[in-house]
Amino acid sequence: MSGNSIGQHFRLHTFGESHGTAIGGIVDGCPAGLEIDLAYIQSELDRRKPGQSHLVTQRKEPDTVEFLSGIFEGKTTGTSIGFVVRNENQKSADYQHIKDVYRPSHADYTYDAKYGQRDYRGGGRSSARETVARVAAGAIAKLLLRKSGIEIHAYTSQVGDICLMKSYLEINQELTETNAVRCPDLLIAELMIRKIEQVRKDGDTIGGVITCFATGVPAGLGEPVFDKLHADLGKAMLSINAVKGFEYGSGFDGVKMKGSEHNDAFILKGNQIGTSHNRSGGIQGGISNGEDIYFRTAFKPVATIMQEQQTVNEKGEAVTTTGRGRHDPCVLPRAVPIVEAMTALVLADHLLRGRTAKI
Amino acid sequence: MSGNSIGQHFRLHTFGESHGTAIGGIVDGCPAGLEIDLAYIQSELDRRKPGQSHLVTQRKEPDTVEFLSGIFEGKTTGTSIGFVVRNENQKSADYQHIKDVYRPSHADYTYDAKYGQRDYRGGGRSSARETVARVAAGAIAKLLLRKSGIEIHAYTSQVGDICLMKSYLEINQELTETNAVRCPDLLIAELMIRKIEQVRKDGDTIGGVITCFATGVPAGLGEPVFDKLHADLGKAMLSINAVKGFEYGSGFDGVKMKGSEHNDAFILKGNQIGTSHNRSGGIQGGISNGEDIYFRTAFKPVATIMQEQQTVNEKGEAVTTTGRGRHDPCVLPRAVPIVEAMTALVLADHLLRGRTAKI
Amino acid sequence: MSGNSIGQHFRLHTFGESHGTAIGGIVDGCPAGLEIDLAYIQSELDRRKPGQSHLVTQRKEPDTVEFLSGIFEGKTTGTSIGFVVRNENQKSADYQHIKDVYRPSHADYTYDAKYGQRDYRGGGRSSARETVARVAAGAIAKLLLRKSGIEIHAYTSQVGDICLMKSYLEINQELTETNAVRCPDLLIAELMIRKIEQVRKDGDTIGGVITCFATGVPAGLGEPVFDKLHADLGKAMLSINAVKGFEYGSGFDGVKMKGSEHNDAFILKGNQIGTSHNRSGGIQGGISNGEDIYFRTAFKPVATIMQEQQTVNEKGEAVTTTGRGRHDPCVLPRAVPIVEAMTALVLADHLLRGRTAKI
Amino acid sequence: MSGNSIGQHFRLHTFGESHGTAIGGIVDGCPAGLEIDLAYIQSELDRRKPGQSHLVTQRKEPDTVEFLSGIFEGKTTGTSIGFVVRNENQKSADYQHIKDVYRPSHADYTYDAKYGQRDYRGGGRSSARETVARVAAGAIAKLLLRKSGIEIHAYTSQVGDICLMKSYLEINQELTETNAVRCPDLLIAELMIRKIEQVRKDGDTIGGVITCFATGVPAGLGEPVFDKLHADLGKAMLSINAVKGFEYGSGFDGVKMKGSEHNDAFILKGNQIGTSHNRSGGIQGGISNGEDIYFRTAFKPVATIMQEQQTVNEKGEAVTTTGRGRHDPCVLPRAVPIVEAMTALVLADHLLRGRTAKI
Repeated sequence: MSGNSIGQHFRLHTFGESHGTAIGGIVDGCPAGLEIDLAYIQSELDRRKPGQSHLVTQRKEPDTVEFLSGIFEGKTTGTSIGFVVRNENQKSADYQHIKDVYRPSHADYTYDAKYGQRDYRGGGRSSARETVARVAAGAIAKLLLRKSGIEIHAYTSQVGDICLMKSYLEINQELTETNAVRCPDLLIAELMIRKIEQVRKDGDTIGGVITCFATGVPAGLGEPVFDKLHADLGKAMLSINAVKGFEYGSGFDGVKMKGSEHNDAFILKGNQIGTSHNRSGGIQGGISNGEDIYFRTAFKPVATIMQEQQTVNEKGEAVTTTGRGRHDPCVLPRAVPIVEAMTALVLADHLLRGRTAKI
Repeated sequence: MSGNSIGQHFRLHTFGESHGTAIGGIVDGCPAGLEIDLAYIQSELDRRKPGQSHLVTQRKEPDTVEFLSGIFEGKTTGTSIGFVVRNENQKSADYQHIKDVYRPSHADYTYDAKYGQRDYRGGGRSSARETVARVAAGAIAKLLLRKSGIEIHAYTSQVGDICLMKSYLEINQELTETNAVRCPDLLIAELMIRKIEQVRKDGDTIGGVITCFATGVPAGLGEPVFDKLHADLGKAMLSINAVKGFEYGSGFDGVKMKGSEHNDAFILKGNQIGTSHNRSGGIQGGISNGEDIYFRTAFKPVATIMQEQQTVNEKGEAVTTTGRGRHDPCVLPRAVPIVEAMTALVLADHLLRGRTAKI
Repeated sequence: MSGNSIGQHFRLHTFGESHGTAIGGIVDGCPAGLEIDLAYIQSELDRRKPGQSHLVTQRKEPDTVEFLSGIFEGKTTGTSIGFVVRNENQKSADYQHIKDVYRPSHADYTYDAKYGQRDYRGGGRSSARETVARVAAGAIAKLLLRKSGIEIHAYTSQVGDICLMKSYLEINQELTETNAVRCPDLLIAELMIRKIEQVRKDGDTIGGVITCFATGVPAGLGEPVFDKLHADLGKAMLSINAVKGFEYGSGFDGVKMKGSEHNDAFILKGNQIGTSHNRSGGIQGGISNGEDIYFRTAFKPVATIMQEQQTVNEKGEAVTTTGRGRHDPCVLPRAVPIVEAMTALVLADHLLRGRTAKI
Repeated sequence: MSGNSIGQHFRLHTFGESHGTAIGGIVDGCPAGLEIDLAYIQSELDRRKPGQSHLVTQRKEPDTVEFLSGIFEGKTTGTSIGFVVRNENQKSADYQHIKDVYRPSHADYTYDAKYGQRDYRGGGRSSARETVARVAAGAIAKLLLRKSGIEIHAYTSQVGDICLMKSYLEINQELTETNAVRCPDLLIAELMIRKIEQVRKDGDTIGGVITCFATGVPAGLGEPVFDKLHADLGKAMLSINAVKGFEYGSGFDGVKMKGSEHNDAFILKGNQIGTSHNRSGGIQGGISNGEDIYFRTAFKPVATIMQEQQTVNEKGEAVTTTGRGRHDPCVLPRAVPIVEAMTALVLADHLLRGRTAKI
């Protein structure tokens, strides 16, 4: 149980290091008969790939996915879907200088502590490059969810202290993909972009928040007790590199409210049962209630900065290290499709799990 | 995969409804040879039980745990440990009035949507009463962790807008158990207590935050990619009733920082590698680095209030409902041992998983 | 992952030692809405219990099952079903003499090698008494399968060298429960009974074979590759105490056949596709084909004999040991319901797993 | 849970169809620091590959494995090991004639029943070609086991009615690889070879038995109850294409013995505890006892024969079908390394699982 798998029924297993031969995975448990739109899947990968704008790392990685099994005549067959994305633009020489050095706030030291060794090139398995497998698999999950009328949208709602103060209901989601930072408010987007440009100029980095919401989720998804729907969503988000926090519905702000303020009165919406407000974030008792699901995910600033930092090496000697190569000053823009992908994987899993709730 | 299990190697499976015959579970994967201090386990349950102070529900549940297997001559045998806690003070008649009504912000509606039926008495499986099994199992996990020098402490750091502004390093953990709200600052504790007394008097409820930290965790626990240590901690916390958010280390506040501010420089502490600050919260790349692990968990206000609320019944008709019986105006005091228990379960699991990292 | 769980979707977790407080388990993943016939479940346990005839151990264990959760108003609620069977007639003093001795062909030595200790009383966890939990859970699985028209029947087809040479198609299954050895041929049954009486008189034991078949299994159950339906059935049978072999369909005899003899021609049976013969045992490529599933399970003779045997003790000294107490001279009669229960657990699991094969 | 994974701690996930782009998999949970001998792994694949002798299919598949991750500077890193074997000599046109036809004793019909569709080319996922991934992963497991002194050997002990009547202790294992049928007795091997040549000439096929044994297995591997070591071995064998039966130790023959004959007396072997005979097959109570583990696996005759057979097509119409292309008249020779590989996967898994048995 080495942590390279997620999901119980719609499962993803992944492999791959940043500078190894390839990143890839297996999507297992996808039902037979799903039409696979390869162009769509590639377009999702393109939303994540480096070099797509001036805001992100300028590494050139085409990130072309190759499917190896499980699809026949354009449809899933029900068998496991293997896929690979070759690593093609790796410059391992860029990492020779950190071979023996523990970079601050990276996983260099902890991997050594755990495994007694590590593939230091580009962070190896700890590199955010592994998320390419998540996005490829998440795109298949999205296709499956779409069949049930479920759509997922994420956007950048905060960069440093630049914060979009509107709720997801007040924004125009169609604007998200129109700007490099993926914020659906063009004015705020512009401020975010300037902030990122500035930190990059300073050789520094900055964090932020991504908001995500899912519509069309039927009531009844999620399991009681440990696999509550929001618990699985939270784990999925927290498993993304650089994530430090997760909240859904009223979240941390909800703690200040009284029950009489926070409670969601049930009302009829047409002939459907819904809630007057949706402070529950679409989930009650760990199970979806048919309202929109929404949550926020916090990303810390990228650890690799173009500044000299104090640290120690493998021998425990004090040394300095300075970032080299091509890195993201802010992960938020590229993390938007990753958040969506992880959301899709969790919802697809629970959609299938839900099929056995009743006799 | 119905969500009643947690952990990969040190596992807990649970069962039980609020007003059924018993709550219980199986602890599986506990190594042989661990001395079981039954009095300690019961004392942990007593920290969770109703009626322990004037701040919490006045239901009288002795919550006595009976172990049925897996322990012989005072030690674990390596086989699965079954246990039960009988339900003894249930007043099911208190719930007859909600038999057909969906209480706002409860799980009544979602259970019906999922299963087509529900045990309405006291919320059934969705009742926080199921956490009694978590605390019993967590106490065993704590005994195991203690053998490795790992200690876990949680405390109430916020109730409504009353917030303890100190970090976990600045408090005196020994004060936590000296007051009914389990806040280690006596002045703040007094304010919190008054706040809870007030909302109770109003027939209302209030939320809050619990801070938790673990000391003595060796470097190297946690798995890359999906089962990052903080991802498993986050899921464990989010699986607790009423939890809406989780953050570790710098958390949501960290998003505003620059990489140059946020990064944790490695330094030597004696002959151990440590970090100058611990914004990483003791976890880097999903793996513990030997520093303290700390995180915060947000609880919404309890849904059951002693006020009339609008809602609908099973037929979709608008009705009103009012809470009856004996309920907590604030779950925080009783949730402290639950947070600790879930933390212990996750750490014990990863402690064992870590044994196979190297040949 | 300590081996106390079986099934992926319809799951059983068990606990309990022979001379501990109780044996029990949790059935997880049973869909909501299944009517639970408690009398039927108890009748299944009665088929397994000691003392039911002169052929089996004369221990008096009422083996009354108590359900603790997951059932409300006579139906499953979809939540986990906890249950216990108290140990009531244990005479632990009977085992004092083997406290330090490794009984031949028992698990005493291997438990010590694995765990460094063991509960020696009655074999502890290694006692076949743990199968009481399997039968209780299997009875629930049978109720679920019955809803889909699936029935399971097992019978004793061999005791020592007394062998029922007919196929399952040639016997009258209704005769199985009419005799103490559970063989559906009364003449052969009588010979088996005499054989068992003789070995018991000699203070000895004897093995045998149980044949099992399932009717009404729809085509399409089972998973390709590792979780083939017969692989899961085989594992389930091999997990029963004393089992040494498993074969399905043509089994070991099939190896002598040529493909042209062995192949099952497809034919139409009404408007259903079936096979002319059923050498495949109802499973092709690991997936059920709609024909009857049938298989045979081999049980070795019980290890506890009333004769003096050479062995060693914990210190490695040569000693002798002699069985005491009340033991089965032949497990076959009581193993029939166990084989059925394990079959039911596997089929119920695959029945549910099959619900997600198609979109 | 779609059956494409095996193992709890040392895990293999596989993908791939016979005529898809590639077969491959992920080995997860292999500890860090294991030296990977790529030439050895390829040599194991070569033992399985088509065209290696005149006895097996003359298809030309180089079956070259490419590792994509998890290995750095010749050693495992502890992260997941992705690998692919490209399909290169597929002649899909050979299968056009069975597109709509259910071949007798193949998985054509059951896949359609389960998934509503199938990749008919070469059997798709149901083809024994998937075992190439098992052998690649099994070779890594063998390298890990070798570090603990565990060796695994299998050989063909029966083809049709030609049976090697010696036990594994009486053969010279070094002769196994000296002949095309992999039987360690050269006289019997010659008879087996003639038998296979004859059935091939007749356009027919034949089954057989493979015996396997493992030496150097320490006492203490295996889990009580459901994951008994022999139950996991049995499942692993039964998951191999064409397998119909499994028995270990005394197996089906043991049922005729009395307890007094069958019991394995414990004796001292040097300062190790062992047994006088080893009818237990090295496993007692599901846990290894330090003696050799041995078992037998039965393979039915290959379903594809070069003769006209009656069957039905997708519309349910009676049609005839005749095998085409290049097929094995007997799978035994190529199945020997597959049996070894599956044994290695199970033992490696339990070797790691055993690390957490004691505190």
